[in-house]
Amino acid sequence: MSGYRFYQKASEAYYSRPNLYNLLVISTVSGGGLLACSNSIPARTAYADAGGVRLRKKKIVSPRNYFAFTPLLPSVTNGTVEARSIVEPIRNIVRKKKFGVQFREAECYKIDTKNKKAHCKSIPQNNIGGSEDFTVDYDYLVIAMGARSNTFNTPGVVEHTHFLKEIEDAQKIRKTVIDCFERASLPSMSEDERRRILHFVVVGGGPTGVEFAAELHDFVVEDLAKLYPKLQSYATITLLEAGDNILNMFDKRIARFAEDKFKRDGIDLKVGSMVTKVTEKEICTKERATGQNVSIPYGMVVWSTGIGTRPVVMDFMKEIGQSDRRVLATDEWLRVEGCEDIYALGDCATINQRKVMEDIAAIFSKADKNSTGKLRADDFKEVINDISERYPQVVIHLKKEQVKNFLQLLKNAQGEDEMDIEKFKIALSAVDAQLKNLPATAQVAAQQGSYLAECFNRMDECEKNPRGPLRFRGSGRHRFKAFRYKHLGQFAPLGGEQTAAQLPGDWVSIGHSTQWLWYSVYASKLVSWRTRVLVITDWGRRFIFGRDSSKI
Amino acid sequence: MSGYRFYQKASEAYYSRPNLYNLLVISTVSGGGLLACSNSIPARTAYADAGGVRLRKKKIVSPRNYFAFTPLLPSVTNGTVEARSIVEPIRNIVRKKKFGVQFREAECYKIDTKNKKAHCKSIPQNNIGGSEDFTVDYDYLVIAMGARSNTFNTPGVVEHTHFLKEIEDAQKIRKTVIDCFERASLPSMSEDERRRILHFVVVGGGPTGVEFAAELHDFVVEDLAKLYPKLQSYATITLLEAGDNILNMFDKRIARFAEDKFKRDGIDLKVGSMVTKVTEKEICTKERATGQNVSIPYGMVVWSTGIGTRPVVMDFMKEIGQSDRRVLATDEWLRVEGCEDIYALGDCATINQRKVMEDIAAIFSKADKNSTGKLRADDFKEVINDISERYPQVVIHLKKEQVKNFLQLLKNAQGEDEMDIEKFKIALSAVDAQLKNLPATAQVAAQQGSYLAECFNRMDECEKNPRGPLRFRGSGRHRFKAFRYKHLGQFAPLGGEQTAAQLPGDWVSIGHSTQWLWYSVYASKLVSWRTRVLVITDWGRRFIFGRDSSKI
Repeated sequence: MSGYRFYQKASEAYYSRPNLYNLLVISTVSGGGLLACSNSIPARTAYADAGGVRLRKKKIVSPRNYFAFTPLLPSVTNGTVEARSIVEPIRNIVRKKKFGVQFREAECYKIDTKNKKAHCKSIPQNNIGGSEDFTVDYDYLVIAMGARSNTFNTPGVVEHTHFLKEIEDAQKIRKTVIDCFERASLPSMSEDERRRILHFVVVGGGPTGVEFAAELHDFVVEDLAKLYPKLQSYATITLLEAGDNILNMFDKRIARFAEDKFKRDGIDLKVGSMVTKVTEKEICTKERATGQNVSIPYGMVVWSTGIGTRPVVMDFMKEIGQSDRRVLATDEWLRVEGCEDIYALGDCATINQRKVMEDIAAIFSKADKNSTGKLRADDFKEVINDISERYPQVVIHLKKEQVKNFLQLLKNAQGEDEMDIEKFKIALSAVDAQLKNLPATAQVAAQQGSYLAECFNRMDECEKNPRGPLRFRGSGRHRFKAFRYKHLGQFAPLGGEQTAAQLPGDWVSIGHSTQWLWYSVYASKLVSWRTRVLVITDWGRRFIFGRDSSKI
Repeated sequence: MSGYRFYQKASEAYYSRPNLYNLLVISTVSGGGLLACSNSIPARTAYADAGGVRLRKKKIVSPRNYFAFTPLLPSVTNGTVEARSIVEPIRNIVRKKKFGVQFREAECYKIDTKNKKAHCKSIPQNNIGGSEDFTVDYDYLVIAMGARSNTFNTPGVVEHTHFLKEIEDAQKIRKTVIDCFERASLPSMSEDERRRILHFVVVGGGPTGVEFAAELHDFVVEDLAKLYPKLQSYATITLLEAGDNILNMFDKRIARFAEDKFKRDGIDLKVGSMVTKVTEKEICTKERATGQNVSIPYGMVVWSTGIGTRPVVMDFMKEIGQSDRRVLATDEWLRVEGCEDIYALGDCATINQRKVMEDIAAIFSKADKNSTGKLRADDFKEVINDISERYPQVVIHLKKEQVKNFLQLLKNAQGEDEMDIEKFKIALSAVDAQLKNLPATAQVAAQQGSYLAECFNRMDECEKNPRGPLRFRGSGRHRFKAFRYKHLGQFAPLGGEQTAAQLPGDWVSIGHSTQWLWYSVYASKLVSWRTRVLVITDWGRRFIFGRDSSKI
């Protein structure tokens, strides 16, 4: 009942203390929602009333009433893990923390920045009722809408292929694989038809595509081969990658290992193969090497080729004058550019890191306190830290160039111990080259989630004594330190109890031991103790009984 | 691979030993299939080659590639048990036993008795291909098609209500309950609408309906109330029963206990209430007591009012001249009347027990060896056992009338120690009144399954030396003993960890202890060790974490 009581208290409080705020988190993908909310809202706002900004109500709007731990989705496609084991009902999380979050199972289809309202509609249900339409108002808005699969407008993709972003996708894929095997064992099937139905195509050689291909191969070889012995020789898996090699965000060694393993496993890997069209029973590609068009009969296609922006986010971007950009742009504090009190995190946004060159004059003059137009080494001393905090690319550059520190960098640029703006420019000219976008991973979104929570909890406090770097173009300091991503490494499961991992410091680890590292890391990252127990018992069940092949 | 090898051996064998037979089991409900096949086919046909009739091939045709333990379906509707935990892939069972069963995931839509073929078609799949059509030939056919829910042609039932016969039904119900709660918590809902959406109606006061109502009540009170505190006061459950009381096949004490418990739980029980129509948002009933028509707004209706015959079985009945009957009629050996080598079991058939009065003359003359037209007590001695075995109603009658034995019965009928056919008739006149059909339960079907298996395994052997009773109308003996149902008791779970059980000898047991009996019995009855472990861990998970409310 705690939730209920809070709700009542809060609404009484509303009248007594009108200076309370609404925080609204909108999400469309179960994953995005998870990371934004489970961290920032329930986990932290317990402190919110002490110290943090006074939040009258925290509201979550998501079309799904559960959070899913999406990194385990590929394991759901073949039943290594049950769908139910990687989800946690939002209301469970909300209830556990001793305060009320108001959850709405609905989709936000329009953000009205002028009146600070989010327009939402519920998904219509056959006989319960049609689509309900309502608005939710906010003072602070967090957009955690994730992204949709990118079809690159390839014809037939939406109609005929499976994506792998949501629980439902994974369940559908699982059913379809079994379907294919059951149909292929019907007596009326021709040899060719049988071969077609059992041809599984994966488009996209990214981590997801590769992991799925590997998981599928395990399912076929370890489980289905026993149940459909006569079909084993017919089943084939093809992985299509438009680029020159798979897992290109990983270290070359990992990519090579994966390619070799796939060759051994008999997974047909086609690089430089660009999908041009998908029909009901054939997938058409253009081979870069030969330039010829090939069309391959298939039984199932899984499409995992990067991400695109959701229509609702597109509309929002138009409204706030970001229509020229690919994804929503935020500043280093995750504030959506050109908006008040709107934050964005996860796959729907990128951080638009300020360039040093844009601010070079401002930086110079801040350093040049007694504005002589010339800078001495010791003039910098005070601003060095602020510069490297405000412009992290400087630090990266130093590390890359193996320069001891900022002063050294300037020294290298010029002989004398004094420099003007021009020299200063030259010294820092190369720095901005280090800028690159963060990967669209759950890890990034999770860190952004906890960062935002931190900010909301300290907002009042930091208003009084700011903790951020100098405002080079303005006066004073920024309220908060800017968001900084800590890369904790990335896994690439390759099937057969083997996993590759790229750990911080480009340390690469491949093999069975890494698989166990994978098990333990993922288990520890799960939402709740409940899901942890469920997933681990699922792994146990699989080791003992194998995967289930019932078509449900 | 064992299955594969058998298949090869068998087909070689076919040419060398043409006197081998095909056994085909057709099923439409996952439950029916389970009981026919898991008992008769895999579990036993291991012996089949030694002693039993030589079966060249055993074939199973079912639209689902798994067997489900249907008695646990109500527990699936609220997540006390996961759907996956009560199913076992047919191919798993088939594979485990060291011999080949040929399984087809398809539906039998026509039985051609003349050419001994079953016409089957597969369920069409979106992009894998359309519906495949093929025939399977048989020498022996077992019909285990179960039954469908009986709508009594009430308008709107098929369109708007949920049945509870298949896994998919249970899953849909579970989703819908959560849907109702999520929608009811939308701000745009009116009070009335909210009350409507959270009104759950169960039609039919049989064991399934009662158990479901109880399970739903537990789900709402134990789990959902915590997650949707504001909605608890809106949620209501109504159980509609057309008859005068619920659980009428049980002892009165059980029915009364259930009614009292429902009253305490606040489940609204309406007896004598006949559903006349179901619209999208209202269910219309006619109250027998008042004679007036009532229409009740609802959010979800679950329909469990007895069983009806499937269209394919109807067609078959027409073809074999049983069109006047309600369900398929078999003799006491489960052979479909008017057919060769066709057997039927489970809900799709009833045993047409031969009446004593029909055969009275034949019985008399068999007893009257030296055909004097008169019978002495000692004339009977030899035939008594055969009579009571061939006509079990005699035994039931004796028990009921508390007559020590058959002779006594005759003595009571007449003073002298000699009787003619007329007196004989009078003596036995009351006997046939004891005949009644077996209940449509999984228990019956299961026993019939193992009985048939037994028969197939001993066919050759029993051909030589029959084990059945005398053929009163013919000469010699029947090959097999007739099927005899052993009632092992029946459970009626009433929620709140309380269960009522009616055990053999009309011993009634109600309460928590019975719940534990229920747990252990059901656990022991499950198909495989896998499902046993799964169900038990599910129970454990539920005790620890409660039921999951994610809408997947």
